[in-house]
Amino acid sequence: MSDTDLPNDGGIKLVMAIIRPDKLADVKTALAEVGAPSLTVSNVSGRGSQPAKKSQWRGEEYTVDLHQKVKVECIVAEIPAEDVVDAIADAAHTGEKGDGKVFILPVESAVQVRTGKTGRDAV
Amino acid sequence: MSDTDLPNDGGIKLVMAIIRPDKLADVKTALAEVGAPSLTVSNVSGRGSQPAKKSQWRGEEYTVDLHQKVKVECIVAEIPAEDVVDAIADAAHTGEKGDGKVFILPVESAVQVRTGKTGRDAV
Amino acid sequence: MSDTDLPNDGGIKLVMAIIRPDKLADVKTALAEVGAPSLTVSNVSGRGSQPAKKSQWRGEEYTVDLHQKVKVECIVAEIPAEDVVDAIADAAHTGEKGDGKVFILPVESAVQVRTGKTGRDAV
Ligand SMILES: Nc1ncnc2c1ncn2[C@@H]1O[C@H](COP(=O)(O)OP(=O)(O)OP(=O)(O)O)[C@@H](O)[C@H]1O
Ligand SMILES: Nc1ncnc2c1ncn2[C@@H]1O[C@H](COP(=O)(O)OP(=O)(O)OP(=O)(O)O)[C@@H](O)[C@H]1O
Ligand SMILES: Nc1ncnc2c1ncn2[C@@H]1O[C@H](COP(=O)(O)OP(=O)(O)OP(=O)(O)O)[C@@H](O)[C@H]1O
Ligand SMILES: [Mg+2]
Ligand SMILES: [Mg+2]
Ligand SMILES: [Mg+2]
Repeated sequence: MSDTDLPNDGGIKLVMAIIRPDKLADVKTALAEVGAPSLTVSNVSGRGSQPAKKSQWRGEEYTVDLHQKVKVECIVAEIPAEDVVDAIADAAHTGEKGDGKVFILPVESAVQVRTGKTGRDAV
Repeated sequence: MSDTDLPNDGGIKLVMAIIRPDKLADVKTALAEVGAPSLTVSNVSGRGSQPAKKSQWRGEEYTVDLHQKVKVECIVAEIPAEDVVDAIADAAHTGEKGDGKVFILPVESAVQVRTGKTGRDAV
Repeated sequence: MSDTDLPNDGGIKLVMAIIRPDKLADVKTALAEVGAPSLTVSNVSGRGSQPAKKSQWRGEEYTVDLHQKVKVECIVAEIPAEDVVDAIADAAHTGEKGDGKVFILPVESAVQVRTGKTGRDAV
């Protein structure tokens, strides 16, 4: 981290984003550029505020209510969590409904398993 | 949200539930009815407090210790998190061991990617 | 829990670990030994602080940047979260890069679906 970066509020944060699967590559690049390259990715499905959509398949009506998404989790300490949120939200944006959400949760402590380091140094 | 709903404590909350896979449809319906239709779903496996169960397959003994479950995550702001917890717990209940758990975690901030809205309006 | 166990700070905690998949069995054993056998497991992929690795396959260069990992989540109340973190970190350790991380997050409340128990008794 360069000297000109602002510190965050001192806490460790979990930035959790639910994004479109085809935006993962752009989000990874954006995270690396903002100095927070570490991340954990899961396949999830979900729905936002749109009502479930009725579709037809071979004459049968069915309801599409869960869409494939990707969850990206970044635990950060040195880089302000807001910068990480902005980087993800920029990279994940298309302007169409379904672009996703980004949340920040507090983290109380961290351990790096290989080194045994704890706290901010472990993130 | 109708005028008669109670506000929550002002904070954004993550309601995280681990439920039986075959209760997901009922839980989705219950969430929509309580006014919190947005959710993220993941496939997980897990164990609760029961000791691992020894079984046999073609004469070989093996231990079943992780059961397929579904994780449901709902971030809520306008609807009290306790109402969401109650809706999930009611819908997921069978009375048999293995029905699952529901937890509430604090969330510090939220962004809706499409609109850039932040805070309670983004949830 | 025996009388000689130390209480934790009174709060419910989520211990979230990202570990090597082939360490899951050892981590489950360690958790049971420390008195916290309940857990939820997800398949995830991720990267830590190492730069992405360039590899070749049939003459094509490609970048390996996400490694298969397992996420283990344990919500604990009676057992100190730090003991759970130490048990996981010990069991997951190889000394090679990529051993993973363990984080503690605060949890505000818990419900056991079968019994309706709430709070520390529900964990
Ligand atoms: N409140 C929420 N709780 C849990 N998951 C959510 C929530 N809101 C959105 N998600 C997750 O994010 C994904 C994308 O949500 P989405 O972008 O459709 O939100 P939205 O509020 O409907 O916004 P938009 O109007 O732009 O579609 C959902 O499929 C779901 O997995
Ligand atoms: N303390 C916990 N930490 C993490 N995950 C948990 C915890 N307790 C339960 N789970 C998850 O919830 C699933 C269902 O748990 P389960 O309902 O069996 O809990 P229980 O305490 O054993 O209650 P019951 O006696 O009704 O079976 C587990 O498979 C696991 O994925
Ligand atoms: N800050 C983080 N945020 C989110 N996930 C992380 C973070 N750090 C590590 N992880 C997850 O843990 C996995 C293992 O990380 P890893 O052990 O390589 O961390 P590291 O800091 O690079 O340590 P080491 O130098 O020992 O490799 C990653 O693949 C990723 O899924
Ligand atoms: Mg939507
Ligand atoms: Mg059980
Ligand atoms: Mg690494």
